[in-house]
Amino acid sequence: MNCEIIAIGSEMLTPHRQDTNSLYLTSRLNALGVPVAFKTILGDKRQHLVDAARIALSRADIVVFSGGLGPTEDDLTREAVAEALGRTIERNADVLAGLHARFATRRMTMPENNARQADVIAGAEILPNAKGTAPGQWIDTVHEGLRKLVLLLPGPPGEIKPMFDEQCVPRLKAALPERYIARRTLRLAMIPESQADARTAPIYKQYNDVETTILAHFGEIQFHLHTEQTSLSMAQERVDELAGRIEEELEEFLYSSQGESLEEIVLLLLDMRGLTLAVAESCTGGMLSQRLTSVSGSSRSFLGGAVVYSNQLKTAFADVPPEMIEQHGAVSRQVAQALAEGIRKRTGATLGVGITGVAGPTGGTPEKPVGLVYLALSDGRQTEVKEVRTSGDRERIRYYASQQALDMLRRKLQV
Amino acid sequence: MNCEIIAIGSEMLTPHRQDTNSLYLTSRLNALGVPVAFKTILGDKRQHLVDAARIALSRADIVVFSGGLGPTEDDLTREAVAEALGRTIERNADVLAGLHARFATRRMTMPENNARQADVIAGAEILPNAKGTAPGQWIDTVHEGLRKLVLLLPGPPGEIKPMFDEQCVPRLKAALPERYIARRTLRLAMIPESQADARTAPIYKQYNDVETTILAHFGEIQFHLHTEQTSLSMAQERVDELAGRIEEELEEFLYSSQGESLEEIVLLLLDMRGLTLAVAESCTGGMLSQRLTSVSGSSRSFLGGAVVYSNQLKTAFADVPPEMIEQHGAVSRQVAQALAEGIRKRTGATLGVGITGVAGPTGGTPEKPVGLVYLALSDGRQTEVKEVRTSGDRERIRYYASQQALDMLRRKLQV
Repeated sequence: MNCEIIAIGSEMLTPHRQDTNSLYLTSRLNALGVPVAFKTILGDKRQHLVDAARIALSRADIVVFSGGLGPTEDDLTREAVAEALGRTIERNADVLAGLHARFATRRMTMPENNARQADVIAGAEILPNAKGTAPGQWIDTVHEGLRKLVLLLPGPPGEIKPMFDEQCVPRLKAALPERYIARRTLRLAMIPESQADARTAPIYKQYNDVETTILAHFGEIQFHLHTEQTSLSMAQERVDELAGRIEEELEEFLYSSQGESLEEIVLLLLDMRGLTLAVAESCTGGMLSQRLTSVSGSSRSFLGGAVVYSNQLKTAFADVPPEMIEQHGAVSRQVAQALAEGIRKRTGATLGVGITGVAGPTGGTPEKPVGLVYLALSDGRQTEVKEVRTSGDRERIRYYASQQALDMLRRKLQV
Repeated sequence: MNCEIIAIGSEMLTPHRQDTNSLYLTSRLNALGVPVAFKTILGDKRQHLVDAARIALSRADIVVFSGGLGPTEDDLTREAVAEALGRTIERNADVLAGLHARFATRRMTMPENNARQADVIAGAEILPNAKGTAPGQWIDTVHEGLRKLVLLLPGPPGEIKPMFDEQCVPRLKAALPERYIARRTLRLAMIPESQADARTAPIYKQYNDVETTILAHFGEIQFHLHTEQTSLSMAQERVDELAGRIEEELEEFLYSSQGESLEEIVLLLLDMRGLTLAVAESCTGGMLSQRLTSVSGSSRSFLGGAVVYSNQLKTAFADVPPEMIEQHGAVSRQVAQALAEGIRKRTGATLGVGITGVAGPTGGTPEKPVGLVYLALSDGRQTEVKEVRTSGDRERIRYYASQQALDMLRRKLQV
C-alpha cells in the first residue's frame, strides 16, 4: 500500500514557491501507516494532468491531488482525473445550491464560472469544504483490476488541512487494514551527525523492525523512530526500548525525548525551577530573544534583554566598561562575560546570557575570524564562558550561536 | 523546449525534508529560457527510477536528475538511467584513478564500494565534481526520434550548485537556441494581494509578451516580470516599461524596484541620510532586530535596542512610567509611544521604534484581542503611532508587526 501526491499549480514550478501541502499530507499518511512513494508537481496543462493521473494510477494505491479545484479555466483537476479514470462529470445540484447560498449570504451574485466547482466525477463522494468554495472528492474504485483510492483536494493550506483531517482521515482509517504504529522523536544538540550515527548504528541496526531516520540541522540532530507491529503495546514497547538505548548512549547531548524544541525545553526548565532569564546579544542581533519569545508563555521566565549591536549600547545596557572593549575588543571572552553579568544585574534576572562574535561575511581578522563566537552564562555566583568556532554564512553562524547559548542554558538547568 | 527535474532520495518523501535543489535549478534554467514543466520526487527503488526516467524522457526535452550518485547500493541513478536509455555502463579508468588519488591524499584506502562512482553511461560526458567524489554525467542524445538532454547531478546542494553553474550552464547555452531574456522584481509592502492585482491587471494584461507573476507573503507583495524578445535591448525595454507603469500605479506601496528586501532598503535609506536607529520590542521579542542585523553591514546605522518583554524592562530600558502601564496596559498607544521615545533617548539614536501587542495564542481580551499591535516611530520632534489588527498564528502576527515597523521606517525615510 503506497501513495502518490500530485500537487497542481504553475507557481510551484517557479524558483519562488514550493509545494508544502505534501509535507503535511505525508505526516498524516505516515501516521496511518501509508508511505509516500512519489510526489509529482505540475502546472495546469490538461494533457499533462491526464497523463500524470494515469501514471499515478498505474504505480500507486492511493493518489492524492492537491489544487486545481478553483473556478477558473486553469482549474482542470476534475476533468483530467475523470478522463484518466474513464468517467463522466456531472454538475451536482446540491453543491451548486450551496455555492449560490454562500455568495448570497455575502450579498454577491455568483459569477458563472464558479458553477464549475459543482462538477463532480461520477461515483465520487463529495467532501465538504469548511473553509472555501471548492469541495473535495473521494473516489474508492477498482482500476485495471486493482483497488485505488483517489482524493481530489483544494490547494490552499487553510482548506486542505482541515478537509484532510476531518473528511479523509476517517475514510482512510475505514478503508485501510488496521495497523499498530508507534513513533518517537529524540532531539540532541551540539553533536556532529557522523558521531551520532557511528555511536548509535550498532544499536539501531539490532532493531530491524524499527525504522530509524537521522536528520541534521545546524547544531541539532534528530532521531525519528517508527515501527509497525501486531499490537499497539508491542509497537510502543519497541520504539521505547530503542529510544531508551539511544538516550543512554548519547545522554549528555540529549535534550528532548518527546520532540520538544530546545527553546521549549529551556523555558520549561526555567519555569519548573522558578528562575528568570535575560540576554544581551551582539552578533546574534535578537535571534536568541526571538527564538525564546516564539514560544507562547515564554514571558513567565524570559524577561527580555538588550540587542547591544553597537559598543556604546554594550556599556549603556549591560555596563561593559569602555576600557574593556578598547583593550580586548568587542569580540572577546571578557566582553561576553561582562555582557552576561551586566544584563543579569540590570534586569534582576536569575540568569544572564551574553553573546558576542563575528557573524561575517566581512569583519573577520586572522586572530578573530568569521565564525568566532564567545558565549557567557552567569548565575550571579559564577560565569561560564565558552569560545566556539563555526563556519558557514551569516545566517548559519548566527543560528549556531543562538543554539549554543540555548544548549549552555539546558546543560546548566538539567543538572 | 521544457524540463523535468527528478529528485531522488527517500528522505524527501518524509514529512521532514523537502527537495530544495529544484528551486535553484529552476532559477538557472528559467534564466536560460527553459521552463520547468514537471518535478518528480522519488526514493531509491530501482524499478521506480527506471519508470520515472522513461516517463520523463517521453514528456520533457531536458531531464535533470539530482541525487543517487553516491557509493552505496541505494545509489541507483546511473543504472536506472542507462536502462531507460537502453545503454550500457562502463567503469571509467580516469574517474577511478581520480577517486583513488582523492582518498590517497587523505591517507585513506578507498572502500571497494566507491568504485561504483566511476561507472559512466556509454556516450556520456563526465562532469567533474569540485566539491565531492561523485562526478556528474551529461548526455546529449536522440531518443525515439527527438533530441534529449539528460543530466545526472549529485544531490548535496554544495555539490550540485557549482557543478550546474560551471559545467552545465555553458553546455546548455551552447545546446539551446540563442534567447534574449530580461526580468525585473518589484516589491511592495502592506497592500492586499487582491488590490494589487485589481489595480495592475488592466496594465499588465496589455503586455502579452511579458509574463507577470504576483506572489504574496505576510505584509508583502512581489511582482516578477519576465520576457523573451528578439534582442536583449528590446527585452529590457519591455520589462522596464511595464515595471515603470506598475510602479506609477502603486507608488506609495513600492519599496524596491530591483528586488532588495525591506530590511535592506531601510538600512540603505538610513545610511544614505547618516541616521541611526534603535528599537524597543515587546511582542516581536527581538524579531525586528534580528531581521535588521541579518543584513551584513547593518551596524553602520542600527545601534541595537531592547527586548522589553517584561513590564519591568519597559521601564528599566526605555523609561516607560510604571503608572502608564498600570493605567493603559502594556499593549496601548501610550506605551508604544513611550517605548519609541524612551529607547531613542537612552541610546542616542536619531530614530526610535517601539512595538507592543498581543501575539497570542493566549492573552487576548475583548478590548485587546490577539493580533492587536501598536507601533510607534519617534524622531525626537514627533512620534507617529499606528494601531494595526491582524490575524493568524503567533509567528505570523509577529512577522507582520515587524514588517509594519519596517514599512513605517521606509515611508518616513523615503519622503
